Amino acid sequence: MKPQEMVDRILKADRRAAARLMTMVEDQSELASEIMKDIFACTGRSMLIGVTGAGGSGKSSLIEHLIGRFRKDDKKVGVVAVDPSSPFSGGALLGDRIRFQKYSLDDGVFIRSMGSRGYMGGLARASSDVVRIMEAMGNDVVIIETLGAGQDEVDIIHIAQTCLLVLTPGMGDDIQAIKAGIMEIADLIVLNKADLEGANSCIQSLESAIHYNLKKDKDVWVPRVVPTIASSMQTAECEGIEDLYQNIMEHQAFLHKTRRIDTVHAKRIEQELGLIFKDEVEKTVFAGLKGTGKKREYIESIIKGNNNPYSVVDEVLSTFLRTEKLE
Amino acid sequence: MKPQEMVDRILKADRRAAARLMTMVEDQSELASEIMKDIFACTGRSMLIGVTGAGGSGKSSLIEHLIGRFRKDDKKVGVVAVDPSSPFSGGALLGDRIRFQKYSLDDGVFIRSMGSRGYMGGLARASSDVVRIMEAMGNDVVIIETLGAGQDEVDIIHIAQTCLLVLTPGMGDDIQAIKAGIMEIADLIVLNKADLEGANSCIQSLESAIHYNLKKDKDVWVPRVVPTIASSMQTAECEGIEDLYQNIMEHQAFLHKTRRIDTVHAKRIEQELGLIFKDEVEKTVFAGLKGTGKKREYIESIIKGNNNPYSVVDEVLSTFLRTEKLE
Repeated sequence: MKPQEMVDRILKADRRAAARLMTMVEDQSELASEIMKDIFACTGRSMLIGVTGAGGSGKSSLIEHLIGRFRKDDKKVGVVAVDPSSPFSGGALLGDRIRFQKYSLDDGVFIRSMGSRGYMGGLARASSDVVRIMEAMGNDVVIIETLGAGQDEVDIIHIAQTCLLVLTPGMGDDIQAIKAGIMEIADLIVLNKADLEGANSCIQSLESAIHYNLKKDKDVWVPRVVPTIASSMQTAECEGIEDLYQNIMEHQAFLHKTRRIDTVHAKRIEQELGLIFKDEVEKTVFAGLKGTGKKREYIESIIKGNNNPYSVVDEVLSTFLRTEKLE
Repeated sequence: MKPQEMVDRILKADRRAAARLMTMVEDQSELASEIMKDIFACTGRSMLIGVTGAGGSGKSSLIEHLIGRFRKDDKKVGVVAVDPSSPFSGGALLGDRIRFQKYSLDDGVFIRSMGSRGYMGGLARASSDVVRIMEAMGNDVVIIETLGAGQDEVDIIHIAQTCLLVLTPGMGDDIQAIKAGIMEIADLIVLNKADLEGANSCIQSLESAIHYNLKKDKDVWVPRVVPTIASSMQTAECEGIEDLYQNIMEHQAFLHKTRRIDTVHAKRIEQELGLIFKDEVEKTVFAGLKGTGKKREYIESIIKGNNNPYSVVDEVLSTFLRTEKLE
């Protein structure tokens, strides 16, 4: 498939072309960046929802029900599931096949699991590119799912406009621990498995944490606690999903009414710039080192005690980097 | 404290000086790299043990008992606990205080929790520097604890010589999922909470996974499954800890006997070079962009649709990077 053909097909929501570009992005192909440039103008208009929460919180099940709710409105939905643990587990690939089976025949739903690919990583950058590709395909909503641990996941969740933090009752100390950070990341706190013991006191303690941390600014969004019951996949019903959906829509309306959405767009682009930057710098510098035999020499001199990694990096950087500032 | 004084004190195992340098490393102070250069020659002689496993697997409790076992031999022990989730939780700071209380008055034990510090991150690099500092203090053993998810944690666990993967019975599908990756990362698989139902079948399935993946090379280390029972901290006994300790010592003996330890040292240095590299490149490039107003301009042009992040990065990189190869 030629680049231009790939661009055309993706803009017509061709699933195979999109999947192929996503793989190119993961493989850090040079061509991928060129194609991304071409589709970029057709992105930036989707609703981006981040869903973060620990394993076992019922995230996937909730997302399944959220997809269903958006499909009722005939919205096209993309899901990017970020799973950095996959260098250990291969979980991402497996995940693609076994999760969200319900929607495997629905052309209005496109799911992609992202796993780490060894040292050079760039998982957050690749995930952020995949979100752009899903937008170019014309998805109205893109859901970004993360476990909420690790830098890559923090980086990627900052791309989202409306961020859901999924908790369950009985997390006890964990909830204490995250209180401090709640205001920073979550627009909506979903207390899933709200039929379990301790749900009410959990809701109360979350709400008092929210109000304790509340800034007294006008026009500020006050995070809300939304109880849901979606404990296992493939269940027909999910209590509270309509309420969650309404709250998401209200947060989106808030962003647009207050023009806060402009800041959100700018922050997303700043974040993306940082991610692409890091990735490209590494690629360029590592490419310059590769195949020169110089790296092996450096390592040997360090092992022999004639050098140290800090001085080696100083030396290499002075070769590659100009230190002047941009005008 | 002057740099030279700090170096001298750290080499004499002064805890305050070491803690201060660790904070400087986390804060990415310029001076920190200079001091690291000075202490580097006094590092590289400790036994490095990686302990990775999901939350709830009893990792901390196991490590507590391992510390106790090494203390019996009068070995000095350092622990670096890597917790990238702390931008959400503040867990790392809290952790410092509440974990391993048993050893808070023992001068032969030094514990440091590492949390992520916002976008510029560099958690793996900082953790790797902290391991070097612990070596410079004269710790015989340094234990690196991670949750085993996320790129930072994968990066740092590759520093270890002997890697323990902690699992529990009843992880079911998780165990299936990690089978593929087990051979790559774990020298010893610790099945903790081995008194729980399903422990025996779990051990069997792990062992068959090991033998299924086994390369037929001579002199290859065959990962072993070691059952333990260490479910809660502060317990007096931990069944299987002596067996685990013996297996660790046997793996270390194997590394030294086969000279495999040389490869392990070289890989560690290669990994460190990569981490320091990434970190320093980012610092230099970002410093060049900072305060020029240029960044804001770029973001605005992207929002207006006149540019895209991929082209912006190309432009900035061509300003900063020389693309020639090292001679």
